[in-house]
This record gives sequence, C-alpha cells and structure tokens, in this order.
Amino acid sequence: MTIVRQPTRAGVRDAAAKMAEILPMTPLFTAEIRGVTVGVKAECLQPIGAFKIRGAWHRLTAIDESARAKGVVAFSSGNHAQGVAWAAKRLGMPAVIVMPSDAPRSKREATLALGAEVVPYDRMTESREKIAAHLAHARGATLVPAYDDAWIIEGQGSAGIEAAAQFHDAGLGALTRVVTPCGGGGLASGLALALPDAEMRIVEPEGWDDMCRSLEAGWIEEVGANPPRTACDALQTLRVGTLTFDVLSKRSALGVTVSEAEVRDAQRWAAATLRLVVEPGGAVALAALLTGRVEPQPGTLVLASGGNVDMDAYAAVLAGEG
Amino acid sequence: MTIVRQPTRAGVRDAAAKMAEILPMTPLFTAEIRGVTVGVKAECLQPIGAFKIRGAWHRLTAIDESARAKGVVAFSSGNHAQGVAWAAKRLGMPAVIVMPSDAPRSKREATLALGAEVVPYDRMTESREKIAAHLAHARGATLVPAYDDAWIIEGQGSAGIEAAAQFHDAGLGALTRVVTPCGGGGLASGLALALPDAEMRIVEPEGWDDMCRSLEAGWIEEVGANPPRTACDALQTLRVGTLTFDVLSKRSALGVTVSEAEVRDAQRWAAATLRLVVEPGGAVALAALLTGRVEPQPGTLVLASGGNVDMDAYAAVLAGEG
Repeated sequence: MTIVRQPTRAGVRDAAAKMAEILPMTPLFTAEIRGVTVGVKAECLQPIGAFKIRGAWHRLTAIDESARAKGVVAFSSGNHAQGVAWAAKRLGMPAVIVMPSDAPRSKREATLALGAEVVPYDRMTESREKIAAHLAHARGATLVPAYDDAWIIEGQGSAGIEAAAQFHDAGLGALTRVVTPCGGGGLASGLALALPDAEMRIVEPEGWDDMCRSLEAGWIEEVGANPPRTACDALQTLRVGTLTFDVLSKRSALGVTVSEAEVRDAQRWAAATLRLVVEPGGAVALAALLTGRVEPQPGTLVLASGGNVDMDAYAAVLAGEG
Repeated sequence: MTIVRQPTRAGVRDAAAKMAEILPMTPLFTAEIRGVTVGVKAECLQPIGAFKIRGAWHRLTAIDESARAKGVVAFSSGNHAQGVAWAAKRLGMPAVIVMPSDAPRSKREATLALGAEVVPYDRMTESREKIAAHLAHARGATLVPAYDDAWIIEGQGSAGIEAAAQFHDAGLGALTRVVTPCGGGGLASGLALALPDAEMRIVEPEGWDDMCRSLEAGWIEEVGANPPRTACDALQTLRVGTLTFDVLSKRSALGVTVSEAEVRDAQRWAAATLRLVVEPGGAVALAALLTGRVEPQPGTLVLASGGNVDMDAYAAVLAGEG
C-alpha cells in the first residue's frame, strides 16, 4: 500500500518562500463590487498568465537531483502545461505535455514556446492519464498531476499566503472569505490550507459543478454525461481530486455555479475596471460576486486565476457578442 | 514678472515618497521584444487606469490647507481628469473638470463617478483654457494644468523612481533607456528628471508629432493644421509645454512616431502577452519597440501609460478590425 503524502499548511508556507525567491508577488487590487471593497488577486499577471506556475515550481523543485535529467510528463488543457513547461525550462529539465487536440491554440503555442514537447490526444476517445503514464514509464520521467498531488496543492496555496500579507498592507483588514474558481480543486484546497480562518466559496461553470455537488453530497460525484459546452476550458475536469475534495470537505466549503453569460459579463468588467485580461475559467469567481451568488463582504479575497484567452473569442466577449 | 517654478529631481523624489504613502508601486513586468528582455511599467494598473494620478496627487497635496476648500479646476480629455478627481476626492476637495464633449464615454463616466463636476466644451470652437481660467477665477479655485507645471512633471516622474528600484530587484541591470508615450510631455520630462543617466526616447502618433519636431528644431513647434484622426485620444495635445520641452531638449531626447495600425498591433500584443488592457495612447511606446522604430536594448524601460479604453473600439482592435 502506497502512503499518499498529504498537503499541509507548513508545505504551503514552504511553497510561498520558494516562490518569493523567483518571482514577485502578483498584485492584489482593491475593487468595489456591489458596494463592498474586496481584494482581487491577479494571477492572470503571472509570467505564464495563470496560478499554475506555483504548483509546478513547488513540485519540480521537490524532484531529486538524480531524477531531474529524465524530465517530467504532465497532462493538461493548457495552464498547467505552461506552468510545468516554465518550471522545467528554468530547471533545465525536459518536459512532455499531453494536451487535448482541441486546447486553445494560444495555450498550445505558449507551451511549445517554453520548450516543452506537446503530445496531442482526443478528449473524447483517448485517456490522457494512460498516455501520460505510459510516456512517464517509458522515459523514467516524473508524472506531474494537475491537481491531486500534495506539492501541487501546496504550491497553488502560496497565493493565499501572499494575499494575507497584501490584505494587511492594503489596510483591507482580516481576510475572512475566499472566492475562487474550481476545476480539479488544486487552487481552492491550497488556499484553504493557506488561510485556515477564512470561509471557502468555490465557483464552477453550470454543468461542470462536480465539486459543488460533491461537497453537498459528502462524497465525490463526477460531472454528468454530456456536460454542456463551456468557454471555461481551464475548469473542464470530469472528476475532482481525492486530496482536494478531502481538504475542502473538512473546511465545509460551499460551492456555487455561474452561467456562461455571467462569466462573459465578468470578463468585460475585469477589462473595464481592472484593465485585466481574464480568461473565462479565471473569471468565474468574479462572476459569482458580481451577480451576488456569493455576497461580497468586507475581507473578501477573490481570485482572477488566469488570463490565457484565444483572442478572437475574447474580442467577441468584449464586443458583447454571444 | 512671475517666476515659474522649475521641476527638479528632488521634487520627483519627494513625489515618489508621497505616492508610496498612498499606493503600491505599479508592477514592472519583464517581456521579450525582438529578442531583448525589457521592463514594462504598467501604469494602466493604477486605480484610475493611468499615470496621471501621480502628478495630480503631488500637485493637490502641495495646495495650502487654506485654499483647499475652494477646490480645483482642470481641463483634460480624460486621464488627467480622473487623476485630479481621484486626488480631490481623497483630500475632500471639490473638483471641476472641463472636458471635450467628444471625450471617450468611459473616461467621462469614470470622472463623474469620482465625484467631480464635468463641464463639456467643443474641441473645435471653444477654448478649454479660457473656460477653465474663468471657472477657477470665479470660484477662487486652483487651476491644475495637465502637464506644463513643475508639480505635475515631478509627480509623473515618480514612476521612474519606482522603475529604477524595480529594475534592480528584478535583476534587469542598469536602466539605460526610457521609451515613453508623449502628449504634452509631462510623463516624459518627469521620467527624464527621475532617471538622469538614461537615454530618452519619446513616442507620438503620426501627425501629432509636435514634440518630435520640436526636439529636432530646438524650439517648440505646434501640431499642424488639420491633424489626422488618431485613436490616441490621450496624446492629442496641440502644443507641448514650455517646461516639459525644456527638460527634454536639455536631455537630447529623440522622438519617433508610430502609425495607427502599429498602435493596434501593440494593443493586441499587450493583451496576449502581458494580459493587460492598454489604451491606444498608452501603447505607442510599446509599438515603437515592437516595430524596431526604437531598437530594444538591455536596460530598456517602456511605459504602458494608460488603459482606459472605450470597450467597443477596443474589442474591434482585438478582433483585428480597422
């Protein structure tokens, strides 16, 4: 029986210290939403345009020196891919990314530009897990999961350590509530560990609300058959992680969903008010606050988790189309 | 004879200290342009979406306590208006802004939202200077020029003090060259004072190249009759300032121009690469580097000076139209 390493708050603090060595904190902006001043953590301003750089860095730096030459393998629709590619490049490690053939072009190209090898697969007929496991085994490379991994969770949580310090510096008072996008739950569970006194509100697109339903049920429920199309490519996970669910369940996290139209409204709001390009999946938590599905309260931290958009689709959103 | 106060480097440093008391530094991003890593100062991420908050704060805080109750008057196409309105609100002073009736709606609405009174005028037939002077005289209010004023220049220059510190922290080495948008020259001359060892490159839209031509001629030349339409509303000044020209001329600043199409390309690049919404006038310096009209070199600082866009026009730019 394999003992699975559990993510810890000490690990999150360690990850935050490691991030501080290589990158400046992402800015925390204050914004008024429904009459309440909240703090917006702009993870879309990371070098790869998303928070995923955090978990990747914490995970890859934890790989033994002896194993680094054989590289890493990951599967991802895009942002995790870029995070792993970025960290691998910086550490001089080879990286292979298994990516759906329908991933946004911008994300695929950015991954290639970071020097990673991209192996495409068909989202409907092939198993990315099997392809990745096979590749990792064949090369002796380390498999880097996108979310269900202690290091990945701890790494993503480093955003919460930064935010707590920034809340203090900005005079925003105590950080009492976290509102965050949720795909597999890596960011949400990391933030929960980072901020043990905050209420957790996790946000998913309609029809992809497996974490919402899992938290309500008390066990993991998968996304249903034939889920609706969503612009939130970064949140299209069919099943949350065992580790991530466990952390969020123990914290009595509550989940809400937002519609595609509400996500587009939030993207427009972020561009007009914060001058930030936020991708659909990165805007769901803002959408939840803007619509009042999660009521803004003093001390609210909201994550703008990514900004990797396909430009044509984004232009249409800003034009108010669709 | 009135002695006009001259802007000084000590004044710029004082302004930077005053800014540090109220706002975090705007982020400095690193980006690769034509194979060279440069530093991009994101002034579009200021609370009002532009650097103008700096000069306004430095100027308004220099007004005697006894004169504050009578308020301030400014004329501006938008960003200076918001800077003055923001500073006045924070200091509890009334503010009147004389604004062209064709100013971007987003800028007018943002100024009103900051509690200022907006007085519209016709750009083609009326003199904003006369209207503003009349209002200031009638109310006993302080007139706050947009650029030709020692405090305003020093305030804008505070961005350069921050950038120098950020270059050091980011390991970017010595700051050797500044590439900045130029309307009336307040930002450019402030940066020149802040960074006495850097080469100055100022950038204007084609047909609005009065600072370029003035620097070449050695005296102030105005924008010609019937200048072309430009999307760079923030840079539509017909005549640069005496103080700003003087500073830049003594520093042997060189000017270049960029086309409207090059500005749109730079806006798209900023959205895709930095995830920043940058307005046309805020993107001209990026355009100069991206096109090689100013060759990027190590140690280059480029200003993304504002992000207040009209969303429909911006969506069209991102869609590649026009």
